[in-house]
Amino acid sequence: MNTTRRTFMAAAATVAATNAGASPAVSAIPKLVHHVFFWLKNPDSKDDLARLLQGLRTLSKIETVRASHFGLPASTEKRDVVDNSYSVSEILFFDDLEGQKVYQDHPVHKKFVEDCAHLWERVVVYDAISV
Amino acid sequence: MNTTRRTFMAAAATVAATNAGASPAVSAIPKLVHHVFFWLKNPDSKDDLARLLQGLRTLSKIETVRASHFGLPASTEKRDVVDNSYSVSEILFFDDLEGQKVYQDHPVHKKFVEDCAHLWERVVVYDAISV
Repeated sequence: MNTTRRTFMAAAATVAATNAGASPAVSAIPKLVHHVFFWLKNPDSKDDLARLLQGLRTLSKIETVRASHFGLPASTEKRDVVDNSYSVSEILFFDDLEGQKVYQDHPVHKKFVEDCAHLWERVVVYDAISV
Repeated sequence: MNTTRRTFMAAAATVAATNAGASPAVSAIPKLVHHVFFWLKNPDSKDDLARLLQGLRTLSKIETVRASHFGLPASTEKRDVVDNSYSVSEILFFDDLEGQKVYQDHPVHKKFVEDCAHLWERVVVYDAISV
């Protein structure tokens, strides 16, 4: 087996971690999901929204962050169980608890809080570990 | 370029969609995140928890579900902003709003609700679209 073939086999194994039927662009989701919802003090301020998103994007640089998703309420069907009152959704994916701890204590995370905490009036965090 | 080489190039392009610095096992997260939190009626019942998880896992079969993450509260640091009161976290990832709609109306989803709705006392759904 030549080097190209071996490298292809490794890449193929990664892609094979994808859920059955899933798009080939998606592989296994990391185990620890850190999902944070922010409610802005000024929910109608586009500047504040842009500032918060800009701050959030710096967090992806932290070395234990495996992937990230920054979002807004999606225009899915309105139902009693759907909470679409938040301003911004931040999801960071980690391999494990240790990775999340490195992030919590990281200077880039601390700077984000220092720079942006004045923008929000409420934050709710959900940490979920895959089972 | 032979077929193996071309296939490798395609696989490599997929892996290159990974966040900078991320593990090669993670590629781009789909745009639409559907995150559901369940609070069981009997939060201490391991049987009820197992039944709910078994039901949830059937949802991954729905063709528009690009990836899934089923989890429990992670033992991250206790902080005022962290809500760890829920029993089960379900995250389904879709490419777009249409994919999520197909899931909502899908017989597999309807059967899940029919089989499992008696298990929970509260559900909160957050739908976030990447920005």
